[in-house]
Amino acid sequence: MPLTPEQLAEIAAARATPRPTLRAVSEGMEAHLYRAHPVLDHGFVRVIDYMGDDAAIVQAARVSYGAGTRHVQNDEGLIRYLMRHWHSTPFEMCEIKLHVKLPVFVARQWIRHRTANVNEYSARYSILDREFYIPAPENLAAQSTVNNQGRGAVLEGAEAARVLEILKSDANRAYDHYEDMLSQARPDGTPQQGLARELARMNLPASIYTQWYWKVDLHNLFHFLRLRADPHAQYEIRVYAETIAACVADWVPLAWAAFQDYRLGGATLSGKALACLRRMLAGEAVTQETSGMSKGEWREFEAVLAPAAVGP
Amino acid sequence: MPLTPEQLAEIAAARATPRPTLRAVSEGMEAHLYRAHPVLDHGFVRVIDYMGDDAAIVQAARVSYGAGTRHVQNDEGLIRYLMRHWHSTPFEMCEIKLHVKLPVFVARQWIRHRTANVNEYSARYSILDREFYIPAPENLAAQSTVNNQGRGAVLEGAEAARVLEILKSDANRAYDHYEDMLSQARPDGTPQQGLARELARMNLPASIYTQWYWKVDLHNLFHFLRLRADPHAQYEIRVYAETIAACVADWVPLAWAAFQDYRLGGATLSGKALACLRRMLAGEAVTQETSGMSKGEWREFEAVLAPAAVGP
Amino acid sequence: MPLTPEQLAEIAAARATPRPTLRAVSEGMEAHLYRAHPVLDHGFVRVIDYMGDDAAIVQAARVSYGAGTRHVQNDEGLIRYLMRHWHSTPFEMCEIKLHVKLPVFVARQWIRHRTANVNEYSARYSILDREFYIPAPENLAAQSTVNNQGRGAVLEGAEAARVLEILKSDANRAYDHYEDMLSQARPDGTPQQGLARELARMNLPASIYTQWYWKVDLHNLFHFLRLRADPHAQYEIRVYAETIAACVADWVPLAWAAFQDYRLGGATLSGKALACLRRMLAGEAVTQETSGMSKGEWREFEAVLAPAAVGP
Amino acid sequence: MPLTPEQLAEIAAARATPRPTLRAVSEGMEAHLYRAHPVLDHGFVRVIDYMGDDAAIVQAARVSYGAGTRHVQNDEGLIRYLMRHWHSTPFEMCEIKLHVKLPVFVARQWIRHRTANVNEYSARYSILDREFYIPAPENLAAQSTVNNQGRGAVLEGAEAARVLEILKSDANRAYDHYEDMLSQARPDGTPQQGLARELARMNLPASIYTQWYWKVDLHNLFHFLRLRADPHAQYEIRVYAETIAACVADWVPLAWAAFQDYRLGGATLSGKALACLRRMLAGEAVTQETSGMSKGEWREFEAVLAPAAVGP
Repeated sequence: MPLTPEQLAEIAAARATPRPTLRAVSEGMEAHLYRAHPVLDHGFVRVIDYMGDDAAIVQAARVSYGAGTRHVQNDEGLIRYLMRHWHSTPFEMCEIKLHVKLPVFVARQWIRHRTANVNEYSARYSILDREFYIPAPENLAAQSTVNNQGRGAVLEGAEAARVLEILKSDANRAYDHYEDMLSQARPDGTPQQGLARELARMNLPASIYTQWYWKVDLHNLFHFLRLRADPHAQYEIRVYAETIAACVADWVPLAWAAFQDYRLGGATLSGKALACLRRMLAGEAVTQETSGMSKGEWREFEAVLAPAAVGP
Repeated sequence: MPLTPEQLAEIAAARATPRPTLRAVSEGMEAHLYRAHPVLDHGFVRVIDYMGDDAAIVQAARVSYGAGTRHVQNDEGLIRYLMRHWHSTPFEMCEIKLHVKLPVFVARQWIRHRTANVNEYSARYSILDREFYIPAPENLAAQSTVNNQGRGAVLEGAEAARVLEILKSDANRAYDHYEDMLSQARPDGTPQQGLARELARMNLPASIYTQWYWKVDLHNLFHFLRLRADPHAQYEIRVYAETIAACVADWVPLAWAAFQDYRLGGATLSGKALACLRRMLAGEAVTQETSGMSKGEWREFEAVLAPAAVGP
Repeated sequence: MPLTPEQLAEIAAARATPRPTLRAVSEGMEAHLYRAHPVLDHGFVRVIDYMGDDAAIVQAARVSYGAGTRHVQNDEGLIRYLMRHWHSTPFEMCEIKLHVKLPVFVARQWIRHRTANVNEYSARYSILDREFYIPAPENLAAQSTVNNQGRGAVLEGAEAARVLEILKSDANRAYDHYEDMLSQARPDGTPQQGLARELARMNLPASIYTQWYWKVDLHNLFHFLRLRADPHAQYEIRVYAETIAACVADWVPLAWAAFQDYRLGGATLSGKALACLRRMLAGEAVTQETSGMSKGEWREFEAVLAPAAVGP
Repeated sequence: MPLTPEQLAEIAAARATPRPTLRAVSEGMEAHLYRAHPVLDHGFVRVIDYMGDDAAIVQAARVSYGAGTRHVQNDEGLIRYLMRHWHSTPFEMCEIKLHVKLPVFVARQWIRHRTANVNEYSARYSILDREFYIPAPENLAAQSTVNNQGRGAVLEGAEAARVLEILKSDANRAYDHYEDMLSQARPDGTPQQGLARELARMNLPASIYTQWYWKVDLHNLFHFLRLRADPHAQYEIRVYAETIAACVADWVPLAWAAFQDYRLGGATLSGKALACLRRMLAGEAVTQETSGMSKGEWREFEAVLAPAAVGP
């Protein structure tokens, strides 16, 4: 469990004191506030604050489009329309702030999403904790043989054991040495100056945990979720995306449902793919050879049309 | 007064129903929520939502810098430190959403601030109201004779009257013609097709009012205020900036005070100016000729050092 | 023709003096540099500068993915792969700078694309020219009766003539008054102060031309083109998008071809739409009633599958 | 030396083939193109491409401000004016693209500058090289005793030797294990599956080198340089900033000189500091106690006024 009793007490205290507000309130999100949703072995996602709800999306869109929009019968219809037609600005009117604890190699992928605000714990200023990500055995996967950028089968017994042993012992040795270099006394008690934190940290592996505050609007969060909750995303960032997604579903249920239908469950087809589709619907048996598509494109096209392509 | 009785009733209703939340609450900002602060003759600024308060800035910064920051004795000291040292990310952790009604020529300046979210009322989709900005006589200024980009003296009687008459009659004629072109009947009752809204709007002058939802983080809002609440900003956008500034002062009073001291009331001096200053403090009488500065720079330097340079 | 002989001479001079460079050079783009491509009645698009070419996209991607990517046989394949899988960062490595002259109401749509750099001609500082967009008769369309945000049939004779007369006379009167208010003498020669430029400009209609420098990376430009070269975009901005698109096709022909296939000629289908498609391919006759889609979604779905959906 | 003979040959080839262009050319920058400027023990900065020069800044500003600006006598004066008055958009009209090789802990600081384009070498896709940053002895500093976020004295003999030994041996062991885990054979030749690259990389320390393409406009680059070429920046990122700064000085010498005077060599004084300054210039002996400033602010204020505050 990643939190100390003191931290749990602080969270409980923060949750014990509701205050009145005139702002839009999402009951679904209030239930999440401050609570640590565990992710991986030491990580978590905590919702610290949010702005807006489904109605706030509609409210912003109606300024944008004027009173005339009343003919879209209800909020759900308008939200689906906005999502379908890539009207992104109303979704930008909702905002969320998270506190996330995550391994450094995950943080390095995450930060590529630039349209967000970040405050990260500083290892120049402070000393990091001895916490490293060590994969559960079922997540210890071999390199994929078909995809340079993916995983294959789970590692088997002896190899898995060796890998875990390496990861653990290297991480612990690195941390021992980190402490040793920082210390103003050598292990034998001899006084020493102590290396600067900003230098000592460079001995720590990318499996060490860091933490940050991350604030983003709903449109850019959807973009993040589309890429990072995708089956092709690395498992270790996907579990963060899935945890956030579950919070979003409680926060803005209508926007989430539209996002699921049009983005997560949808697919973009190329002009070539659409041309094939029209031939197929007209009864023609199209093959990769007659499709005009490369083998890779054809494989992906077939996957989209396969009955099991979209999960439950 | 820019609001209809129906709109005022909607605002009163929104303000009548507080709900409990576990989020950070700024009492100062709750008092502003939804209320229309009048600006110019038909404009307003309304706070629709906000995220965070002074404590949220500190909270984000302390993740960033770790537990070690506790030695900064209090929130005020830390906030001043962050502002002084250009640590902008903690200020980005606060967010505000405004509903603004403003003339189009003001909107065109405003939108240059790109790091914000905007939903504007659409004149492709809806019909604009007959509302134009007509300056009060004391704001009807002549072109500056010393600054290509500024105002000089207030226009005198007959000229002011002529200008106001031109602005009013041109605006009204343009709007009459706008309605006429849109209508499905000519003034004499003859049926006609009616011009597309997206075309008819181009006949309207830049003095017409538009409205939008505008959402921005506190760091970028401070940047906006620094440029637009400045005495060199055009009066018509400055009054919006001042109205927003008054809300910010109630929302995050510590951050606002630091911003006032370090940005609004401060000044940036060049290397040349600092060199002069050191000579002056050492007793030398420095003149523009011996300063190494151009005449324009020297004039600005003298203004910074003049006793009355900073207002109350 | 929007350019004066002096301006044409400046362009000719700029084009007459090639200089050696070690940078990536796109022959296709060199042919466009500085030349004014006319748009609408007084507008233009000029390419002022560019950075990168198709090879630069590949070069950046290969740093990103390492030497392993050599197995993607050629640049075209890699560029198509990047486009298909939404790997946007390599496309951001190309940049273009344009000089655009455009009506203000077009500029107001354009500026919503925030991830770009802009320098606009300042009407606070300078005096605008007497140039207004007056639509050609074939572009003078009625309001659509089915789409609040679109155009219907072309206006017929007498109505078209009235509209054109209104647009022209209002624009000219507004400009006469603009000059009059700015002037330091009344029409009868009486001296006057002259209204500040920053105020006088508000009398001018949205049909007046402005101009700006606009700089954007290729990824964000593609996003702009997808929305603004779309048949649903307003005609007056679409013609700018099409003019820019023709330059892009000469600049980065491989990226442009991929963009055409995967974005302009492609379509995004929702989860519901994909489910219908699978049923249809299995031989079922699906109707709107049995599709689970709203009428609007079904209509758009049918349009995507219709033989003529994608142009030549 | 960080480059292989093959890489050096590629650079020489790229530099051997100038081509004609009609674009703005900066002779100063042409001399840098493609060349690797060494930084730290294995890093480098290479200029891959650039857009614009000093004249391009002026050109964009003059569209922005119209022909009226001709009275600013020359480009230098206008560029200094723009810099002094925070007119940032003309500087955004220049763009630079760099190829940088840098330790991961430096990359993590660097990426906080979000307004830039990045393509990083992917350790999911490819295998990293065995290259780690090992500080030179003179850069092996103790933790500062007065600044939580800084360095103090250089480590002395035995301690320095121990630290270097730890950094080297831990890095090499981590890399040995990285190779071992990736391999499809154990050290004794027994076949194994080989761990996925995206997992194995997490065993590598933050001292390992990565590389990326980084593209940024001149305004945002100046912001980066102001923060990262500052004496308070960590040494290991400062040397990159200084290397880039030297290229910028050759690229846009007028803009660079203005940046040096107004930003690097200048200082921002608070309202309180300006008030003290006026009292001091009037002959009063102001102390921290009578200044209204905190001890920290006063110390910084004194440093600004000290004769040696600005370097040569």
